Amino acid sequence: MVSQDKTAQVNFESLLRIFTVPEGPESTLTQIEESLSGNLNQFLKEHIVAEEKPLREIEKDFRQSILPETPTFVSDHTQHLLDTLVSHSVHTSSPSFIGHMTSALPYYLMPLSKIMIALNQNLVKIETSKAFTPLERQVLGMLHNLIYAQDDAFYSRWMHSAQHSLGAFCSGGTIANITALWVARNNAFPADGEFRGIEQQGIFKALKHYDYEGVAIVVSERGHYSLKKAADVLGIGRESLVPVKTDDHNKVCLADLEAKLGELEENKIKTIAVVGIAGTTETGNIDPLAEIAAICQKHQCHFHVDAAWGGATLMSNKHRDLLAGIELADSVTIDAHKQLYIPMGAGMVLFKDPHSMASIEHHAAYILRKGSKDLGSHALEGSRSGMAMLLYSSMHIISRPGYELLINASLDKARYFADLISQQSDFELVTEPELCLLTYRYIPPHVKAALHKATGKKKHKLNELINGLTQFIQKHQRENGLSFVSRTTLTPKKWDKMTTIVFRVVLANPLTTKEILHNILNEQREIAKAAPSLTKQINTIVDAIESGL
Amino acid sequence: MVSQDKTAQVNFESLLRIFTVPEGPESTLTQIEESLSGNLNQFLKEHIVAEEKPLREIEKDFRQSILPETPTFVSDHTQHLLDTLVSHSVHTSSPSFIGHMTSALPYYLMPLSKIMIALNQNLVKIETSKAFTPLERQVLGMLHNLIYAQDDAFYSRWMHSAQHSLGAFCSGGTIANITALWVARNNAFPADGEFRGIEQQGIFKALKHYDYEGVAIVVSERGHYSLKKAADVLGIGRESLVPVKTDDHNKVCLADLEAKLGELEENKIKTIAVVGIAGTTETGNIDPLAEIAAICQKHQCHFHVDAAWGGATLMSNKHRDLLAGIELADSVTIDAHKQLYIPMGAGMVLFKDPHSMASIEHHAAYILRKGSKDLGSHALEGSRSGMAMLLYSSMHIISRPGYELLINASLDKARYFADLISQQSDFELVTEPELCLLTYRYIPPHVKAALHKATGKKKHKLNELINGLTQFIQKHQRENGLSFVSRTTLTPKKWDKMTTIVFRVVLANPLTTKEILHNILNEQREIAKAAPSLTKQINTIVDAIESGL
Repeated sequence: MVSQDKTAQVNFESLLRIFTVPEGPESTLTQIEESLSGNLNQFLKEHIVAEEKPLREIEKDFRQSILPETPTFVSDHTQHLLDTLVSHSVHTSSPSFIGHMTSALPYYLMPLSKIMIALNQNLVKIETSKAFTPLERQVLGMLHNLIYAQDDAFYSRWMHSAQHSLGAFCSGGTIANITALWVARNNAFPADGEFRGIEQQGIFKALKHYDYEGVAIVVSERGHYSLKKAADVLGIGRESLVPVKTDDHNKVCLADLEAKLGELEENKIKTIAVVGIAGTTETGNIDPLAEIAAICQKHQCHFHVDAAWGGATLMSNKHRDLLAGIELADSVTIDAHKQLYIPMGAGMVLFKDPHSMASIEHHAAYILRKGSKDLGSHALEGSRSGMAMLLYSSMHIISRPGYELLINASLDKARYFADLISQQSDFELVTEPELCLLTYRYIPPHVKAALHKATGKKKHKLNELINGLTQFIQKHQRENGLSFVSRTTLTPKKWDKMTTIVFRVVLANPLTTKEILHNILNEQREIAKAAPSLTKQINTIVDAIESGL
Repeated sequence: MVSQDKTAQVNFESLLRIFTVPEGPESTLTQIEESLSGNLNQFLKEHIVAEEKPLREIEKDFRQSILPETPTFVSDHTQHLLDTLVSHSVHTSSPSFIGHMTSALPYYLMPLSKIMIALNQNLVKIETSKAFTPLERQVLGMLHNLIYAQDDAFYSRWMHSAQHSLGAFCSGGTIANITALWVARNNAFPADGEFRGIEQQGIFKALKHYDYEGVAIVVSERGHYSLKKAADVLGIGRESLVPVKTDDHNKVCLADLEAKLGELEENKIKTIAVVGIAGTTETGNIDPLAEIAAICQKHQCHFHVDAAWGGATLMSNKHRDLLAGIELADSVTIDAHKQLYIPMGAGMVLFKDPHSMASIEHHAAYILRKGSKDLGSHALEGSRSGMAMLLYSSMHIISRPGYELLINASLDKARYFADLISQQSDFELVTEPELCLLTYRYIPPHVKAALHKATGKKKHKLNELINGLTQFIQKHQRENGLSFVSRTTLTPKKWDKMTTIVFRVVLANPLTTKEILHNILNEQREIAKAAPSLTKQINTIVDAIESGL
């Protein structure tokens, strides 16, 4: 509680005070806020990845399971948060933290977030959100326009229409993907004769009525794990997510897609959606969207594009062609908390047809009455915050050309880093960057030569040891706390589809410099030297291979 | 963009500046933040519900569908937000805004939210959240303890266990309810012989394997609309949400529940869950949880309690008995953004058994690796913010006894308001408050007498006109902007189950005074006088009834 007294006390008067707006700049809270801002700025400026302390140690500060029976002063608690939480959190905005889809954020979002938190609107209904509702509808309209570029008349007619929705603002890409596939599933089994629609009667009766043996969602083997989750939640089962082969560039193989769709039809399995990926999570590649669209049209099925990460590229007039064909999709997922530089919790799904979401429309007597413009009637979530406001602000403050500069710079940087890696004799670029994501590994020239030469068990054993080394480097780099790359597992064709652990970097942070990229390679090289046991094992096998033993 | 120049320009250097931590207290951003705080404080202090402007007018400010092609200065944009958004948003924290489950928030949440936004952790995985992960696990543990009160050994063993989860932090109660029912559905159809489990093979094959004709979720007719949405999403269909009758106190009728379960079994329909409600959204009543638990045990089915709103009552040692039996539930939904006074976006679902969530566990190679403590492997959502931090802070700053005072005060206030309404000859209390929610309507004594006396068509006509008057009053009170009550539709037994529109109030805001409650009744009385046409129609019918015509 806020108080000048020495010990915090529980009484109703002091409780009322914490709900009351603090007076002027001398108030305790204002002072706490100022000192907190200073501390956070310090943390954000230090450009160092979080202090390394084993999770087990950190957990000791969070082991109490009983709710506190005595109150704490805000000032004391703030200090406690700085000591136990802030100092052991991850500096996701650090320019050398390039392992995940995080970045530094525009700093104006800090004061503007205050509006969102202070007003605490609930977007589920107009009565608790008022102007935030048209604002969110406009944000969805602008994104719709960026993807589908319909004319003015289209947006005048649909953007603010009570019975329609151009999409939904969600807490993230997973909910966005689930929403898209929920809509696709429901539209695939509409009411018909005595059947009242899958939304009313469920999958079991839907399949019986339409005489199908099963339901499928078809996606490249590089699809995000949220799609598997969607298949589970939606009641069709994870095995009904049918994987399609990918080519050497991690793009969906169209012939296999056609074959799979035909096979499913033959087996009386209804494909509710084909999902194209615009920016795979692990390699950053984009499926041939226009070609998939044509196949979907031929097979009369919903075409969803998961552009959670890559969708921001549409802001770049220079590079948006990479996503050509996205305008043919029935629905698209885009995350604003990825390369649109908005804080965590801002996903979106857009639908080409304003009528698409009718099949998931819900109403209730005390809210979401029919005819109201309540956003809650077309969403998976219920109560929601005014997060759309932050995207609205960035759209205006940065503007489309500003976003274009950021996107272009990130692609240039990825190209630069790919070239830099290729120039090193002891590193290997595993996947080329199509957007700003690439993968690579550390492999000294003599090891690489041996791996090429080797066959059978030795080849696999050597590959396994190199994987161990990659893992070792990644882990120790993280622990050193200077920089962070993530890792994942691929099966590159050039290495006979052997399981290959790689470093994965995403160059979305505008503050990441070329110098940082050089340093990251140097650091990895140094760490490799500090793995004598692994190195020895590798060299032993390399020798054996070279000597033909 | 932040700049001293006259026009905002798009160039990469100025873009980089917006990603950089502002220097010291003289920086433009710091100044904007200060003036913004002042403006927001003014807005929050004025204690007046949002300025009334027709939605159609507000929409004019949000009709552009093309992304801005020129950037705007942060200062200009902030002013634009204040003019077009803040001034037309809803003052949900106003003490006279008592229509929905909103309230004033503790003011310390403003500075503390900064930590959440600035650190921008992603709770899906440890690599981007570190200390936030044990913190969230602890928050879930404390809530689990509040509900289930297991011993220390239990929490030491499970709270931070990588393979287990005591629940999930969600964006809201809807996602929490969906998660609970997803788990219940999956656990109801486990792998068995050749069948690999519903999560793998879906509902259609599950029902075939187990030889069922359908799936049901059973809940009182007062269940929240999110349950219908859950039934739809989960693929069992909205019609599979089987409603059970309620008694005169809006509580589930146990005999009917038993009968429904028996009927479903006879029809070879598998009940995956019975949902008990701890605080119905429209009347605030609590189902007899212990009795429902016994019935669930007998029928061997999952017992879920939707305590999204009422769960906070567990903080009160004085009143927690109202929820007796909740500790027997297999899962419980609680929203922290309702009466735990946290900003929008903080729902939770807790599971009694730490193994329950295994049936929805998901993994992926680049994150959520097996054995990691990543929270993302047991959640419907993927990327998520560090919202749990704000609840953690309130648990410490307010503490359990502080929450108890707040809860107790809100129940006392509801009792006071109910008595006040009952004392008025021209108001009628329609539902008694069990928690801090009640419903009532305006009905002058001569109208009430006539309604009692009337029969047939005249009774219904009169009731319809009274409904029109209630609607009129609610609408005009909202438009006057001094206070806000919501409205809903009930079918009270005392009025022969005729459709009855009522005012609905939730007295959660600690700053709502008795004076405000008096004023609200007075204002409603005054508004009623300003409805001469409706009043005339009502009086005409009343006269006809009285004269026996």
